[in-house]
Amino acid sequence: MQVTELRVRYAETDQMGVVYHANYLIWCEVARTDFIRALGTPYAEWERSGVALAVAEATMRCHAPARYDDVVRIATTLAAVKSRTITFEYLITHANTGARLVSASTTLVSLDRDGRVQALPRAMRELFATIS
Amino acid sequence: MQVTELRVRYAETDQMGVVYHANYLIWCEVARTDFIRALGTPYAEWERSGVALAVAEATMRCHAPARYDDVVRIATTLAAVKSRTITFEYLITHANTGARLVSASTTLVSLDRDGRVQALPRAMRELFATIS
Amino acid sequence: MQVTELRVRYAETDQMGVVYHANYLIWCEVARTDFIRALGTPYAEWERSGVALAVAEATMRCHAPARYDDVVRIATTLAAVKSRTITFEYLITHANTGARLVSASTTLVSLDRDGRVQALPRAMRELFATIS
Amino acid sequence: MQVTELRVRYAETDQMGVVYHANYLIWCEVARTDFIRALGTPYAEWERSGVALAVAEATMRCHAPARYDDVVRIATTLAAVKSRTITFEYLITHANTGARLVSASTTLVSLDRDGRVQALPRAMRELFATIS
Repeated sequence: MQVTELRVRYAETDQMGVVYHANYLIWCEVARTDFIRALGTPYAEWERSGVALAVAEATMRCHAPARYDDVVRIATTLAAVKSRTITFEYLITHANTGARLVSASTTLVSLDRDGRVQALPRAMRELFATIS
Repeated sequence: MQVTELRVRYAETDQMGVVYHANYLIWCEVARTDFIRALGTPYAEWERSGVALAVAEATMRCHAPARYDDVVRIATTLAAVKSRTITFEYLITHANTGARLVSASTTLVSLDRDGRVQALPRAMRELFATIS
Repeated sequence: MQVTELRVRYAETDQMGVVYHANYLIWCEVARTDFIRALGTPYAEWERSGVALAVAEATMRCHAPARYDDVVRIATTLAAVKSRTITFEYLITHANTGARLVSASTTLVSLDRDGRVQALPRAMRELFATIS
Repeated sequence: MQVTELRVRYAETDQMGVVYHANYLIWCEVARTDFIRALGTPYAEWERSGVALAVAEATMRCHAPARYDDVVRIATTLAAVKSRTITFEYLITHANTGARLVSASTTLVSLDRDGRVQALPRAMRELFATIS
């Protein structure tokens, strides 16, 4: 499990006075980037080497809203590794109160430089295997 | 069913050369706004009268990417109306080719001015009943 | 002069209840895309042919806020064409009331495929010359 | 001077392979929030007490692009305090190389709860006076 913390930006709020929901997916991407970096090779390097991970599926349940200037914590776990996809799960909580804000998951599919689905590179699969 | 068309903005792309996935949820919001307006009362008016619809759940499946300057079509349907929630489904296609790009759904929960869950107002439920 | 209309998205508001200012630059990009398309060749095609126009400078003055669901009008004019840059000016008004909302300008610099500054292609300069 | 660091998100890139320019204004907002917090009272508290600071003017010059996963540094300084406005200046550099990426400024106007321009509260002016 990887834990990422971030502070809610004003730009992320909407006129309901809370975080606009699509931003939670962006936070998941930030958390996933941290997760992958912690395994040893930043996603930026994987991408330069010709492996792109594109979001193929996403789900989100909003339990309570995050608000401007809140510090939130995103706990990221690896839920599944298949031949061509990886699934991450995220739990976003309020860093101070621990209140559960959002549960989410994203399944990413491995693409080559031309955007075609390809098997996850062996090196990446072995990396993920070490933690699942 | 309500159909909304929009053209992909440069700001909505990412360095993979396609639309960044979180933007699909924003397009769903644009489509939902059109859907509600077509029923007779814009969402902006509902909100001023004290009814907010907040996203409680969202799902998204990305079949093929949308790209900058593409015109996309979003077909919105009402999937369920319950006492406190409404569920919409969306199919995003490429306007020229008809290619299926994204399927999504969002469940919205009715909130009062203080952000507490409340029953959907009767007037709103009756409005939705006319089309389901 | 090119006129673009768009409707304010919920995602574009912030908790002040108005449009978050950075979105005005995105609207300018939408308007600029329309402007260039109206000259005969969409920007998307220019970019595929190896000409990128990157924002090098931007200014913005906010006179009055745009709000959710407002229809706004963006009047775009060409302010200057130099050997390597183009400057556009934008006036964003409220489509119903005509109220002046935002004045902005952006200067774009011509880049080649490797991101190096290059002279604006002759074909593009001639195109812009027809309207200045 | 206040220094803020942040890491570029994938969502902030566009298909040119660099950060989409409007995001620089969002980073300025993050930096400004840090600046104000460092003076003792977070902006979130000022806003709850009835003082909103809305962006009235912004300028931006892009010297070199920021890229995904870069760590950038934003140095924020107070450029002017007037009766109803505050002006901040920002220099965004690459944290590792020190390369200058973006210079920006924003002038904020003080608004009351109804969105009307008001004098900056005395307490806020005195706070800013301590550092100018």
